Amino acid sequence: MSLVAPDLLFPADPASRAIAADLYAAVKDLPIISPHGHTDPRWYAENENFPDPAQLLIVPDHYIFRMLFSQGFRLEDFGVPTLDGAPVETDGRRIWRRFAENYYLFRGTPTRLWLDYTLENLFGITTPLTAENADACYDVIAAQLATDAFRPRALFERFNIEVISTTDGALDLLPWHAKIRDSGWQGRVVPAYRPDSVIDPDFEGFLDGLDTLGDISGCDTGRWQGYLDAHRNRRAYFQSFGATATDHGVFSAQTANLGTGEAEVLFGKVRTGKADENERALFRAQMLTEMARMSIEDGLVMQIHPGSWRNHSPAIFGKFGRDKGFDIPTRTDYVRGLKPLLDAVGTDPRASIILFTLDETSYARELAPLAGVYPALKLGPAWWFHDSPEGMRRFREMTTETAGFYNTVGFNDDTRAFPSIPARHDVARRVDCAFLGRLVAEHRLREDEAHELALDLAYGLAKRAYKL
Amino acid sequence: MSLVAPDLLFPADPASRAIAADLYAAVKDLPIISPHGHTDPRWYAENENFPDPAQLLIVPDHYIFRMLFSQGFRLEDFGVPTLDGAPVETDGRRIWRRFAENYYLFRGTPTRLWLDYTLENLFGITTPLTAENADACYDVIAAQLATDAFRPRALFERFNIEVISTTDGALDLLPWHAKIRDSGWQGRVVPAYRPDSVIDPDFEGFLDGLDTLGDISGCDTGRWQGYLDAHRNRRAYFQSFGATATDHGVFSAQTANLGTGEAEVLFGKVRTGKADENERALFRAQMLTEMARMSIEDGLVMQIHPGSWRNHSPAIFGKFGRDKGFDIPTRTDYVRGLKPLLDAVGTDPRASIILFTLDETSYARELAPLAGVYPALKLGPAWWFHDSPEGMRRFREMTTETAGFYNTVGFNDDTRAFPSIPARHDVARRVDCAFLGRLVAEHRLREDEAHELALDLAYGLAKRAYKL
Amino acid sequence: MSLVAPDLLFPADPASRAIAADLYAAVKDLPIISPHGHTDPRWYAENENFPDPAQLLIVPDHYIFRMLFSQGFRLEDFGVPTLDGAPVETDGRRIWRRFAENYYLFRGTPTRLWLDYTLENLFGITTPLTAENADACYDVIAAQLATDAFRPRALFERFNIEVISTTDGALDLLPWHAKIRDSGWQGRVVPAYRPDSVIDPDFEGFLDGLDTLGDISGCDTGRWQGYLDAHRNRRAYFQSFGATATDHGVFSAQTANLGTGEAEVLFGKVRTGKADENERALFRAQMLTEMARMSIEDGLVMQIHPGSWRNHSPAIFGKFGRDKGFDIPTRTDYVRGLKPLLDAVGTDPRASIILFTLDETSYARELAPLAGVYPALKLGPAWWFHDSPEGMRRFREMTTETAGFYNTVGFNDDTRAFPSIPARHDVARRVDCAFLGRLVAEHRLREDEAHELALDLAYGLAKRAYKL
Repeated sequence: MSLVAPDLLFPADPASRAIAADLYAAVKDLPIISPHGHTDPRWYAENENFPDPAQLLIVPDHYIFRMLFSQGFRLEDFGVPTLDGAPVETDGRRIWRRFAENYYLFRGTPTRLWLDYTLENLFGITTPLTAENADACYDVIAAQLATDAFRPRALFERFNIEVISTTDGALDLLPWHAKIRDSGWQGRVVPAYRPDSVIDPDFEGFLDGLDTLGDISGCDTGRWQGYLDAHRNRRAYFQSFGATATDHGVFSAQTANLGTGEAEVLFGKVRTGKADENERALFRAQMLTEMARMSIEDGLVMQIHPGSWRNHSPAIFGKFGRDKGFDIPTRTDYVRGLKPLLDAVGTDPRASIILFTLDETSYARELAPLAGVYPALKLGPAWWFHDSPEGMRRFREMTTETAGFYNTVGFNDDTRAFPSIPARHDVARRVDCAFLGRLVAEHRLREDEAHELALDLAYGLAKRAYKL
Repeated sequence: MSLVAPDLLFPADPASRAIAADLYAAVKDLPIISPHGHTDPRWYAENENFPDPAQLLIVPDHYIFRMLFSQGFRLEDFGVPTLDGAPVETDGRRIWRRFAENYYLFRGTPTRLWLDYTLENLFGITTPLTAENADACYDVIAAQLATDAFRPRALFERFNIEVISTTDGALDLLPWHAKIRDSGWQGRVVPAYRPDSVIDPDFEGFLDGLDTLGDISGCDTGRWQGYLDAHRNRRAYFQSFGATATDHGVFSAQTANLGTGEAEVLFGKVRTGKADENERALFRAQMLTEMARMSIEDGLVMQIHPGSWRNHSPAIFGKFGRDKGFDIPTRTDYVRGLKPLLDAVGTDPRASIILFTLDETSYARELAPLAGVYPALKLGPAWWFHDSPEGMRRFREMTTETAGFYNTVGFNDDTRAFPSIPARHDVARRVDCAFLGRLVAEHRLREDEAHELALDLAYGLAKRAYKL
Repeated sequence: MSLVAPDLLFPADPASRAIAADLYAAVKDLPIISPHGHTDPRWYAENENFPDPAQLLIVPDHYIFRMLFSQGFRLEDFGVPTLDGAPVETDGRRIWRRFAENYYLFRGTPTRLWLDYTLENLFGITTPLTAENADACYDVIAAQLATDAFRPRALFERFNIEVISTTDGALDLLPWHAKIRDSGWQGRVVPAYRPDSVIDPDFEGFLDGLDTLGDISGCDTGRWQGYLDAHRNRRAYFQSFGATATDHGVFSAQTANLGTGEAEVLFGKVRTGKADENERALFRAQMLTEMARMSIEDGLVMQIHPGSWRNHSPAIFGKFGRDKGFDIPTRTDYVRGLKPLLDAVGTDPRASIILFTLDETSYARELAPLAGVYPALKLGPAWWFHDSPEGMRRFREMTTETAGFYNTVGFNDDTRAFPSIPARHDVARRVDCAFLGRLVAEHRLREDEAHELALDLAYGLAKRAYKL
């Protein structure tokens, strides 16, 4: 028995399936390029064993606990920590059992695909997880997690990761990256510069953050030019650890391109903590353009992720904090929003800006037409809720005809769930091969071209787009 | 010959088709749960024979006459009554003939599927309807309609309807439901509470409606608390006839959650008939939240149907009145609109709110992410213009990966066309089995899981979500 | 070897494919009706040989040079002329070589399908274009272009074009159409009336245009009634050359229906050149309604193409001018925007207005519901970025169930690339047959119906909708 069929995700039609399978066979074992993700660099630095199965696979995974919560379960019962320290379930085995009893809720979701892949390929489990076998399954996983072969570095190597990027705040001194570098271990773990907390005036502790930014950069963040220099300083610091990219999570795609004088005045207002809502939004908009300009200067690839309404439920935010599954997508207008940034740098081939979206309506209407003409723009992969077979299929169907394949950048796993990384890349490789298989079966592409593309989608595009 | 192929709507690929057919075989004869519809309770109460074929199948069906009107025909020629009593066609045979001559216009539409199914399965007609055989067809139908076997209760039983909900205004005293209850007939026909006319200040006769609401409830609808109590009273009255749900047709998904004082002042203003446009919209928004709170109190499931611009053509509205095919979908913003309501009751597992949409862009972007985390929310099925094979397929493809299957509620036929009910459920069952068949063929789901799901999508989910 | 497989674009499933192929066989050789396009009437009038391969196939094609520009190439290197006359590449062979080297960028795009078709069917080339064979390919094409068999009229006849419409400004005196008419050649080339330049106050030279419009029409364009009469005059002039349609490119779908007095005042303001932004928008909105009314008077079919943000990059616009691939789609609201126009003429079956969109979200939500009830409305085909296999498939999947097939108007090639016309119609015919094949394979349509529809989609609907 097997949890992952050889033909998983390939079209049912035998002709298309055969082509997809053939393409997949040539890419399934390629090294993993993971240019955007959220694994913890401390894991690779300390190389400690992971804790129990629930703490590794269930508790930190918002895809999992949001679904369970939606069906009336309490987050506490799945071990999600409370801000005030109110007690939550700590018994990994009980968490695992509860999850196993409700695993049927995930039918048809990518979580199911990723977990089944992980159970089989990482832990050797080949029977479907049920309430009945939950305990036995738990034991099998726990026993292996305690071994040296399941320490982070061993898994990194087993997963055939060529390079992985973490995501790190602007104020992060990157001690774990330093420790990795100094350890002599050959695994390539690079940081990415994510300065949201010192760019968004609405971020908690923004003003203090600016002070800290000044301290660690040695720049005067009380002034506009000093503040920009501080970013330059930090970007260079990140680059010294191998960073090749920045990352920007923003509510909207709004950008601005003020004159220096105006920008100085705006920064002054923001620095006092008294900027109004419009001014704060304008500052965020201006900073996207500033970051794009710095990308031309220093060569860091810029990633923009707009359109998530973070912490939609104040009750959950108050009780459990951020990242608890309550970030909800909203409509995003790229054509109007990005125009000031594009007027500034859009036709400069040295710029490299990767756009993501949670609003699929923008694929064919806005993103593909923009990326299909502006040399500064490329399209990030189907992201977050759309990091799924149907989501990836829609991405290809709605972007390829206008933007082609070569204005896209391969796959991002975007995850903090380390053991799921091979599963996520496997799903992406399968879905892309399925799409290419259909094009070949319909004679829209030759087989030799599809082979070249399969390699590029699985490996080459990510490596080149992120300069890795 | 047959109008309904055994493999209707199943994927063409033989492997997927075989799975879909196997799943369908196990659900096609399940009883019908019809938790949301618009059949007339008087039919079941009086159990009179239906009138002629045209009056039953053509004249009341806005899917049919809107298509004919779009092609230049006059509504009068299809018997649609005028408000001023200007004469319209009354000869059922002539209406039927005109329809038959133009039946080709419905190629590719669900109307075609529903009517062919009904002609074959209800009336035994197995040759395609044409201008040539229109009269013969008419005679066959008319002869059967005159028999006892085609009276409403007999059809109800023949259709294997386990329970059907009608939709009834807040001021309705439910005399037909009483008559059904008192008749000793075992058919289960329950009302649903639809209070739009006494919640929306723009509804014709709103203020008089509030007075009537006061009279029949014995509550003082001149005051805010009395008005809320009147709703409580009516909801309980509907529940005494078996109601398990309320239904709310609203232009937008805007909600509000005012303090009691503010709400009282707003109600006072609305009660004078002098509230301005913003105040009227705010009142509607507030009442959605009030209704949601009452749902927690009394357990009635709440249905919200936003996004239809009713009576888009004033010329047609003036001549023929409401529901003449001129209700046009518009964009709907759920993430911003529902926030006040969700802040109030969204994380309460006792709340049960079913969301519908006419804006498919909200499926993957808004509705699935919301229903996939808020325990109070579930997703209603593909609705109205999207109650169609492609519409249902898109619904599953765009919601399942984020919300799963178990945050959806099965099928609603939503129809006043009684004879088409089995056809509509049959199409939905076929499309869901086709979707599941594809998942199994692509190894994304095991066959045993698909069987469980097919039963739930056809029967179990509707029964549980609507507490029927 | 062949560049165009016999089964190109048909579903991979053998049953569906066989049906699609059978349908296609019956329509592939039908004459071409090209009711909307941008070929130059001068070509047919003068009947001169086309210049070199690059000037014919690469330089004027914005689909091609926008993709190359997006990948960092300079427009100058592909011969795109600069406004200031700064030198650009003029060597056709070098342009062609550069293109061939980068032809892989077009994998998965319609450009690839169109060019392969053209290379094979027009020029007899059956091996894929590569950097290696670029020169040989160039020679083969150049040699043929120099022959009489490749002059415009010969190609027109070879392409089996029954009628083609050009698109011509309101001030155009149609000298080339006159020359064609007087030449005795039997090819049917008709103009279409596109008055944007004398309707949109933001168009360059708008006020001068109004003066010219007065001069050539003999009407007083200083007054509102005279201005309207001038349009009537020009429309009649176009009709005398065979025109059956008007064409309106607008930023939004906003319409208005002012009283005569208000419209006169607005026109007076616009005529001074001092109307503000809102007034200019209102004037454009009003003129759509006026044009719709004139369509009822004179029978010209009206086409509305909203939703393109023209010349998004000021840098490119400043250097190269209009139509350089920087027209980006935006969201379009038809339900609200068109209401004033529809209130005026929407239910009049004599009106015939064809709507296009670049915002696919409007297909199922707005356009199909509107065209499925208003007799004045029909849906234009998938357009521009959506004139592609996936785009056309989505169009059918999202419009057919609500609007049917008979509220659509067949295919438009919409191109200035004359040699690609057969390729574009071929792709459309294949995609429509593939869609019909799927419906037949799923038993949603009978085979005899699909044959009728295939003929109508390829030929009949365009001919009837455009009165050609």
